[in-house]
Amino acid sequence: MVESKGGADGSDRDASGGARPERPGGALVLIGGHEDKEGEREILREVVSRAAGRPVVVATLASEVAGELWDEYERVFRALGAGDVRHLDIVQRDQAREARWLEILDGAGCVFFTGGDQLKITSKLGGSRLADAICAVYRRGGTIAGTSAGASVMSETMLVGGAGEESAKVRGAVRMAPGLGLVRDILVDQHFAQRGRLGRLLGAVAHNPRLLGVGIDEDTAAVIEPDRRLRALGTGAVYVVDGRKLSHTNIGEEEGDRVLSLFDVRLHVLSAGDSFDLETGRPMSGQPR
Amino acid sequence: MVESKGGADGSDRDASGGARPERPGGALVLIGGHEDKEGEREILREVVSRAAGRPVVVATLASEVAGELWDEYERVFRALGAGDVRHLDIVQRDQAREARWLEILDGAGCVFFTGGDQLKITSKLGGSRLADAICAVYRRGGTIAGTSAGASVMSETMLVGGAGEESAKVRGAVRMAPGLGLVRDILVDQHFAQRGRLGRLLGAVAHNPRLLGVGIDEDTAAVIEPDRRLRALGTGAVYVVDGRKLSHTNIGEEEGDRVLSLFDVRLHVLSAGDSFDLETGRPMSGQPR
Repeated sequence: MVESKGGADGSDRDASGGARPERPGGALVLIGGHEDKEGEREILREVVSRAAGRPVVVATLASEVAGELWDEYERVFRALGAGDVRHLDIVQRDQAREARWLEILDGAGCVFFTGGDQLKITSKLGGSRLADAICAVYRRGGTIAGTSAGASVMSETMLVGGAGEESAKVRGAVRMAPGLGLVRDILVDQHFAQRGRLGRLLGAVAHNPRLLGVGIDEDTAAVIEPDRRLRALGTGAVYVVDGRKLSHTNIGEEEGDRVLSLFDVRLHVLSAGDSFDLETGRPMSGQPR
Repeated sequence: MVESKGGADGSDRDASGGARPERPGGALVLIGGHEDKEGEREILREVVSRAAGRPVVVATLASEVAGELWDEYERVFRALGAGDVRHLDIVQRDQAREARWLEILDGAGCVFFTGGDQLKITSKLGGSRLADAICAVYRRGGTIAGTSAGASVMSETMLVGGAGEESAKVRGAVRMAPGLGLVRDILVDQHFAQRGRLGRLLGAVAHNPRLLGVGIDEDTAAVIEPDRRLRALGTGAVYVVDGRKLSHTNIGEEEGDRVLSLFDVRLHVLSAGDSFDLETGRPMSGQPR
């Protein structure tokens, strides 16, 4: 396990440029994309509820249609009772230094990252004071939520590419990059069942089975509490791919176009109410609320 | 494990109407669909090679475009060196009694089932003398091969429906039916990575974890030898879903629309050359040929 050394400035920044709170006071809500915005809206309702009356900040950094997403999420969050909804949008990295963004985060109960391209988030935010400020919201008990790209960006290492609906290859197209580092020891993939991403997540886990693969279906969330208990919420499933007891993989082989072999992967499928303890590595059954 | 009691007529027919040889002399070649027919044709080459100069019988029972499939497979099998390629086609069940079909099977080295609808195969063949004759080819050392529907039909119980690319439900749309019964203790699903069928196969396995789920990618085959060693062949992967050590599932619950939970599934991903011993339940790594 990589421990945070702390940045030279005494912040929680680690060597990867991510901001990693070792003892967060808040929760993470990782959403697999396409969460319901018209019906029960169970997941977005959870997001608003966790903001507990404090401002909800919608961060559209990942998207090229930031305005449209902002309009949509502002409407939904207000309909669900959020009184103070704010828009965090940065088109270019140098804007991250502007004081107004730090002001927007002031007192925030939740920062919500929309979907889009996760690299747009990390390339604009990574290593900035704004990233530290978002981390501080989390450390002080606020919730950091994100859907699709906004979910995958939260881990130490994130998936940034790799085809779904095909067999993983030894030197496959699975591409990874450092994420925001808000949660350690997991790798997140979204739209999981809908885009047939088992092969891609297995490929990522094979690279280093220290990390648990967490696949999240659409309209489904993995909520990670401060005690590192992960709970499933929504209408789909959360898949935990545990490769720590792998007995064999051929990923170290030279022939890159060979299909990936993996023996003895442990797989847990969590439905709403089930949880998984990231510390003990064990699932627990539960009832949906 | 369900043991065959033998039919009243002393045949190998079991109670489900399938024909199940307890000690086959031949092999099964289960293909996940869309096997290469223009390039290396590794899988179809294997099929022809296993016929060892004896007739190859192409059974198009599953398809509504039987004529087209026959034309295509006859061409490919002949190009790969099969001298005697024969067409077995039955449109209605009562045709299964016609003597000419038994004659076609005479001396066959391989029976190859094309894709289509697996229920078209079992509803026409199940419990017939023709099914017994196909079983006899297998028992005497011939190969029974099948692609897509033609692969899934070979097990005791076969998958006949259930959406891919979504989370499995407790009372989900996974539908099963008795298959030809040529191989026991497994359930086969095809087009596995390409159609995102993990949820569907997990749903099927949860019904009775005695059966191993075998998911086969396109242009990939699981070859099952007489000693019940299963070997992967082709350009994709074969997934073995072992639920025998499941610690929890909610499949017995009353609320049918709950998403399925499964804890402690064991998953093996086999690439070309890897094998899995259906007797010991263990994978073994190997090299592609």
